[in-house]
Amino acid sequence: MADPRDREYARLLVDTCVGVQPGWQVLVLANPLGRPLVEEISRAVAERGAYELLQLSFGTTFLGEPAWIQHAPKELLETLAPLASRALEEADAIIAVVAPENTRDSAAVDSWRLQALQSAARPAMQRMFTYEVPWVGCQYPTPALAQDAGMATSDYAEFLYSAVLRDWDAERERMRRYADRFDEAEQVRIVGTGTDLTMSIAGRSMRVDAGGANIPGGEVFCSPVEDSAEGEITFAEFPAVLAGRDVTGVRLRFEGGKAVDASAEVNEAFLLETLDTDEGARYLGELGIGCNPGITRHTRNTLFDEKMDGTVHLALGNGIHDLGGTNVSAIHWDIVKDLRTGGRIELDGDVVQRDGSWLI
Amino acid sequence: MADPRDREYARLLVDTCVGVQPGWQVLVLANPLGRPLVEEISRAVAERGAYELLQLSFGTTFLGEPAWIQHAPKELLETLAPLASRALEEADAIIAVVAPENTRDSAAVDSWRLQALQSAARPAMQRMFTYEVPWVGCQYPTPALAQDAGMATSDYAEFLYSAVLRDWDAERERMRRYADRFDEAEQVRIVGTGTDLTMSIAGRSMRVDAGGANIPGGEVFCSPVEDSAEGEITFAEFPAVLAGRDVTGVRLRFEGGKAVDASAEVNEAFLLETLDTDEGARYLGELGIGCNPGITRHTRNTLFDEKMDGTVHLALGNGIHDLGGTNVSAIHWDIVKDLRTGGRIELDGDVVQRDGSWLI
Repeated sequence: MADPRDREYARLLVDTCVGVQPGWQVLVLANPLGRPLVEEISRAVAERGAYELLQLSFGTTFLGEPAWIQHAPKELLETLAPLASRALEEADAIIAVVAPENTRDSAAVDSWRLQALQSAARPAMQRMFTYEVPWVGCQYPTPALAQDAGMATSDYAEFLYSAVLRDWDAERERMRRYADRFDEAEQVRIVGTGTDLTMSIAGRSMRVDAGGANIPGGEVFCSPVEDSAEGEITFAEFPAVLAGRDVTGVRLRFEGGKAVDASAEVNEAFLLETLDTDEGARYLGELGIGCNPGITRHTRNTLFDEKMDGTVHLALGNGIHDLGGTNVSAIHWDIVKDLRTGGRIELDGDVVQRDGSWLI
Repeated sequence: MADPRDREYARLLVDTCVGVQPGWQVLVLANPLGRPLVEEISRAVAERGAYELLQLSFGTTFLGEPAWIQHAPKELLETLAPLASRALEEADAIIAVVAPENTRDSAAVDSWRLQALQSAARPAMQRMFTYEVPWVGCQYPTPALAQDAGMATSDYAEFLYSAVLRDWDAERERMRRYADRFDEAEQVRIVGTGTDLTMSIAGRSMRVDAGGANIPGGEVFCSPVEDSAEGEITFAEFPAVLAGRDVTGVRLRFEGGKAVDASAEVNEAFLLETLDTDEGARYLGELGIGCNPGITRHTRNTLFDEKMDGTVHLALGNGIHDLGGTNVSAIHWDIVKDLRTGGRIELDGDVVQRDGSWLI
């Protein structure tokens, strides 16, 4: 029996996120374990009178099978297959359903190979980056994702659907109010456990993510002024997760925008190595405020964690260039800070959120 | 752990059957349950320096997802999506791995929908029919196929690999000798239980299938002269299988090439209905001789059954037009007759096979 939540989920993706129109060619990238949702997408695309081009893959990069990527010659990794390129360039909409069987599967693939392929795909994906083509990425509740979250699969499914299946119009309206308040301000101050950090957002604007190109939505975010961060922040509540590695108890001290001091309780060497990736890796690329009431716990899954209600996140590295961010880096590492127990956000000295609850 | 037989199977497909060359775009159509074989294909294609375009599907038609086909508007079923069409037209090789989860899955799809889609795909598939593009179709041993065969899955896997992983050069040479002997003859006589049937093959030539566009190979076959079949044949040993239905104890009597009398012990009404599909349905489109020593039992799977060593098969309906066959019909129903217990084949009066053993 189909889960009625998958039908609702499919409609959210097909109708709300990409707005499929009759005659469109809809490229659906997915993993086999996402089948219940994928079947509802197939049906919804058909009912909108559009073509479905399903590309199921055993890997989650959607640019090639792990076994192919690991054994293909370098030249082939550096140029996308013409037919693959054309699908990305000519599809009228793209829906990606990540449903991993094992979130560490890519450990079997050399990282230079993945990077080469990602670079090769960039020209064909340009229209996704610029939102010239409507697209959405989302996840399906598999045992592997539940395991990363430390939850039983059925509980994880409840969690995921509750994060995803929301009244996004109402959420957008609510978050727009917060974003407007930020847009009027010049300085943000974040105070919490081991944390007192200020930064300027003068001239920068906040974007509302209410379920567009990624589902779940539920954050407002901007690129803060690059040289403005001052003070320190301790990510005491949750690990910072990157490439499947947990860095626990991260503490950063900023001067003139740069993280000049960094430490961690676990995996400090990995933290420091990552901060030394390039010049931009020690500067902030993003300040985001999690606003999704369905996300009440950390699940070691950035797309969800960063939207957790009552948290903020900072991304080290590459800025959001279409929001005025100028920082450039190969990394963009979102790290989440809980403000629900004794934290607050101030805008130009006014408290706008206390203990995770909005005062706006 | 990968099964070494899948690596060998993949090499057979990639190297022997389609002969993948560097830089080719290889379209691989498969079902998720074929994963062990598909992963070896991905690897083999990479090692040949070619691109792999994997299109996994939940259905076995490879022309669309069952849920899409069942709900799409008629107009869309009548024209292939441009991107899907281009993949079929521009791929340098096509490999299809059928690995069904349930061989009756298509029961949920209206047959007019499948037929519309198959007609729509015909132009893009024309180069497959004419072998302008190298392609091969094969099967992977899933529980559903084993179940149809009445076998446990591991035993079925043994059976399938033994049918597939053969020395095809040696098989080709051996079968070529049988085919040459048939090509010298004008009349074929098949004698066995309840069977004494003659037909002319004058001017028609035998083709050897030693693992080209379908795997397993293992038959020699031709289109007999359409008005020549005289006598009767009883398919006493195995059911005739069509669209998942078994017709048991089929007996046919031919006069002037036409099956003028037909009966069956089980499902006779379905037999008669099928014979009345159209004018050509009561004439023979094919005479085939099974020659695959790895296939020693009937598994209710025509691609294997028709190659069973020591059997012949007759196809009612559409002839093999590039072998001179002129019969036209919407059906082509292969039915297998066992000659291993008291049967023989005569060519112009000389016995060439007795009790399933060749005398050539």
